[in-house]
Amino acid sequence: MALPAEFHDIAERVNNWGRWGADDEIGTLNLVTDEVVRRAVAEVRTGRRVPLALPLREDGVQTGMIPGRVNPLHTMVQINQEIFGPGTVACSDDTVTMGLQAATHWDALPHVSHSGRIYNGRPAATVTAHGGAEFSGIEKAPYVVSRGVLLDVARARGVDRLEGGHAVTPEDLEAAEELAGTRVRAGDIVLVRTGQMRVYLAGDRQAYAHPSPGLSVRTPEWFHARDVAAVANDTLTFEVFPPEIEDLWLPVHALHLVEMGMMQGQNWNLEKLSTACGQEKRYAFLLCATPEPFVGGTGTPVAPVAVL
Amino acid sequence: MALPAEFHDIAERVNNWGRWGADDEIGTLNLVTDEVVRRAVAEVRTGRRVPLALPLREDGVQTGMIPGRVNPLHTMVQINQEIFGPGTVACSDDTVTMGLQAATHWDALPHVSHSGRIYNGRPAATVTAHGGAEFSGIEKAPYVVSRGVLLDVARARGVDRLEGGHAVTPEDLEAAEELAGTRVRAGDIVLVRTGQMRVYLAGDRQAYAHPSPGLSVRTPEWFHARDVAAVANDTLTFEVFPPEIEDLWLPVHALHLVEMGMMQGQNWNLEKLSTACGQEKRYAFLLCATPEPFVGGTGTPVAPVAVL
Amino acid sequence: MALPAEFHDIAERVNNWGRWGADDEIGTLNLVTDEVVRRAVAEVRTGRRVPLALPLREDGVQTGMIPGRVNPLHTMVQINQEIFGPGTVACSDDTVTMGLQAATHWDALPHVSHSGRIYNGRPAATVTAHGGAEFSGIEKAPYVVSRGVLLDVARARGVDRLEGGHAVTPEDLEAAEELAGTRVRAGDIVLVRTGQMRVYLAGDRQAYAHPSPGLSVRTPEWFHARDVAAVANDTLTFEVFPPEIEDLWLPVHALHLVEMGMMQGQNWNLEKLSTACGQEKRYAFLLCATPEPFVGGTGTPVAPVAVL
Amino acid sequence: MALPAEFHDIAERVNNWGRWGADDEIGTLNLVTDEVVRRAVAEVRTGRRVPLALPLREDGVQTGMIPGRVNPLHTMVQINQEIFGPGTVACSDDTVTMGLQAATHWDALPHVSHSGRIYNGRPAATVTAHGGAEFSGIEKAPYVVSRGVLLDVARARGVDRLEGGHAVTPEDLEAAEELAGTRVRAGDIVLVRTGQMRVYLAGDRQAYAHPSPGLSVRTPEWFHARDVAAVANDTLTFEVFPPEIEDLWLPVHALHLVEMGMMQGQNWNLEKLSTACGQEKRYAFLLCATPEPFVGGTGTPVAPVAVL
Repeated sequence: MALPAEFHDIAERVNNWGRWGADDEIGTLNLVTDEVVRRAVAEVRTGRRVPLALPLREDGVQTGMIPGRVNPLHTMVQINQEIFGPGTVACSDDTVTMGLQAATHWDALPHVSHSGRIYNGRPAATVTAHGGAEFSGIEKAPYVVSRGVLLDVARARGVDRLEGGHAVTPEDLEAAEELAGTRVRAGDIVLVRTGQMRVYLAGDRQAYAHPSPGLSVRTPEWFHARDVAAVANDTLTFEVFPPEIEDLWLPVHALHLVEMGMMQGQNWNLEKLSTACGQEKRYAFLLCATPEPFVGGTGTPVAPVAVL
Repeated sequence: MALPAEFHDIAERVNNWGRWGADDEIGTLNLVTDEVVRRAVAEVRTGRRVPLALPLREDGVQTGMIPGRVNPLHTMVQINQEIFGPGTVACSDDTVTMGLQAATHWDALPHVSHSGRIYNGRPAATVTAHGGAEFSGIEKAPYVVSRGVLLDVARARGVDRLEGGHAVTPEDLEAAEELAGTRVRAGDIVLVRTGQMRVYLAGDRQAYAHPSPGLSVRTPEWFHARDVAAVANDTLTFEVFPPEIEDLWLPVHALHLVEMGMMQGQNWNLEKLSTACGQEKRYAFLLCATPEPFVGGTGTPVAPVAVL
Repeated sequence: MALPAEFHDIAERVNNWGRWGADDEIGTLNLVTDEVVRRAVAEVRTGRRVPLALPLREDGVQTGMIPGRVNPLHTMVQINQEIFGPGTVACSDDTVTMGLQAATHWDALPHVSHSGRIYNGRPAATVTAHGGAEFSGIEKAPYVVSRGVLLDVARARGVDRLEGGHAVTPEDLEAAEELAGTRVRAGDIVLVRTGQMRVYLAGDRQAYAHPSPGLSVRTPEWFHARDVAAVANDTLTFEVFPPEIEDLWLPVHALHLVEMGMMQGQNWNLEKLSTACGQEKRYAFLLCATPEPFVGGTGTPVAPVAVL
Repeated sequence: MALPAEFHDIAERVNNWGRWGADDEIGTLNLVTDEVVRRAVAEVRTGRRVPLALPLREDGVQTGMIPGRVNPLHTMVQINQEIFGPGTVACSDDTVTMGLQAATHWDALPHVSHSGRIYNGRPAATVTAHGGAEFSGIEKAPYVVSRGVLLDVARARGVDRLEGGHAVTPEDLEAAEELAGTRVRAGDIVLVRTGQMRVYLAGDRQAYAHPSPGLSVRTPEWFHARDVAAVANDTLTFEVFPPEIEDLWLPVHALHLVEMGMMQGQNWNLEKLSTACGQEKRYAFLLCATPEPFVGGTGTPVAPVAVL
């Protein structure tokens, strides 16, 4: 089975291989220039901060459906231990085991491959058990700070959340952009709200996972046209699931990560941000969302914060 | 063995229990108001970003000296796996096991206790294996964004790094403050550079760990007087090690975390920041250093970024 | 809430504290003398070996109901890695994270406490995050080899499996003993088959967990009278669940582990053994079931083998 | 670089591919017949049991030299937790993270490959991150019980331990066999004592690891001639290290695991067994050494016990 012609057509149109040189490992993050950061900072008015990460706990969004992608297991190795003798200052220490893609996270570029290739045309075989991703591992993106724009598609459509299976289209994005009152520009990080997170927050992990609203295979071209630096949303699957085209699984992942070299974020909690943006009637802000620098990591938990 | 009178004297002077109410769980982070954030943002001039985290890898700063505090173990659970069938988009997934205090990290307030108490007078026994820290767990600090000030003590003293065993005093801090050309204010996050990280970066983990320069037991009063929100530095031990007063182990930890309710950061790599601040001749910046929200965590890896 | 008088009455009758000295850490394992082992060996007729462990995998018996008790997560750190250069012999290495009580396992004596005590009257507080169990950790039982006797209660009652909630009584044990055609003796390890494992093997983890047949609170006295060395069965809960006496949770655990100092095994797959014993018409065998010697472990995965 | 002709010559002479059918996954374990087990049981005289596993702890034999092969990290997730309410029976639960080849262990057959092949000619690529070893994973050996024979080479040579770099030859094995007073037969499991474990037990992990005595590349032919079922010894490297032939790394691993399909064990503590065998003047016994059945595992911790 090969990927269909339709996929390859889009791939050709959005492909960024070589755009920042043959050695490039960070793709569209190159678009976040110092000037973009200065503009991002200029969006801050009140100093209000809104966290976008789900709490890291064993009762997280993973259901066991994806083998190996385990919710955080938090364990103790010291509890009030008087390591220097009785009556001294006591220490507590903890450890965690977790899937790097399990919680609120960024996908690194080599998280997916197709046709044997990752971003910039490198062989998929450069991802190994020995060192993880030799190229474009998450540690190659040591800072992610830019202007964030919330495209609140659910609000723009007048619903609390999009139905499971709803494919978010470029038209949806533009309606939300109009609501936002700002134009998405080069280097921006776009946060697309579907409202699906409300299902998880209400306690139903299975329904959160599947079926899910998410990005249509038509949106990568829109992001490419706007030269967006990264995209995140409030779903487990990121793209609409089940997929729009039969037997074409994860096309948006492949287009973003492999073809465009654009990081994408999943399981971001955009509910409080939606409320805050609605209250303040502005949808652009400073976004701090730096990955944990796991060497060779094909993903990372992240604790993003919007500063309004 | 009890803690000496000298410790209790200082503790009384810096104690913040009840200052933000009996229910407070975040201590000096209360000092980071919206106004402080606006001032922090106003420090940004160029948009230059400097990452402060060490790469997360098995060859990290831990030597095995501290039981259970393990360097990150990065493992693979999927490598280019065509989960939906041959020829489809392929996925790579990874997991990590690590000590929450092992790498560049924040100590949460309940990381240490003394005399059976953690911050705000709560019983130390509220830290359990079952849920970690019931109060003041790291997830209670969902955003850490403020003005950062680099106090480059090594540079102020004209050395690459302070000697192992050098206790950084209030006088050292003030000399570095003068070099910085800004006054440390309420809500600031202070980064104290000793240069000790150069030892680790040069490949000697043992010498990095011990003996180490670090904060003197006299500095908490200085941070308290300035109403600092948090302090981080570039050492494993944070405070001078071996300690200044015989048999008084970890007094600065106890004063900051238990008495003041002030988070502290360790193993921050301040070398590039020192270079950047030296070049730009300014030592204040926007600091984004939000914890990963591990529920009940007594610490967290963090990937701080300074925006100049 | 205190434990009811009924519990304390039984506890007094089965208590073994001090029986093997104040320093003893292994309880009823003391009953496995060299002579018992020679008798165990003498039971072997055919040399047929029957494994009793479930495969260790992420899809194990745990459902997430018990916080922290995670199924085995198997990950790779090397795959056909030519660590000494191209063309050399290549290595594959793996790691695991798992709960020590998650799979086919032994409970070590300090796995439970009541009234602040573990076996032999030691304080429950001797179990810490720092080192696990200071006393009676699973490493203190470096070999478990004895005569095993299958008490096939399901077969003796003429059913494939006992109903969920069925409490296995001393009368059940004696009926199965009669079927077995051998008398349970001092130092024997008794395997009690309920047939509940068939539910898990048929794919229903939830129904396997709860409600479950299991040992009645009346059975510890029977095991005590016979001076059994250890008991294992084919359920998650070991004892009948929900419990027989309202609000008296885990009484059999407390009687076996704390009062008697007798290890107990859970999630043992006794289906093939039942078939083999039925075919050979004998229910006694050599049992090899040595714990993995985790220092301070309050439990351990085990791969028991019956040699018929 | 290719493997030298000398290696391929030996490989051809010891190769067992197809010997037990094209579908076979357990190799020389096929030699452990019911009759062999009956003979093994017949070796038991006193019932004395000798454990051969090192304690599983963070301070284990691994030094960090082998990436990803981590010593056991033991953590707590419950400590005396009264999960059913105050005053009820309290539970302690623990978890572990460890390398499957880190401690006293068996190498499964697919632990190494050469020339793209594992045992029985299967592609090395059948080992994946997704499921580990598709063929000959350690779970395919659900019981390992046989006659064990201690070949105490150190004692036969009149030394406490062989020098680092000493290659144990077939002549060494035969001298030890003569000392043992028994002939190694088909289906036996041979334990080769070098005494190197004494270095670790004396506290020097670095010297234990390297240089190490171990099996010569000439010994696989001897084991093949005797139709041994498995071999274990008391070193980290198993074979002599550094190797006998320049740039021929791990030839014994490749011959045993890939060509012969014979499991091998490392880091077995044979010191107490040596003492016991010396006292009883017999070196054959019943050996129980069943792997933990990790699905897809290329190795497993094991807690072997010799019954004399």
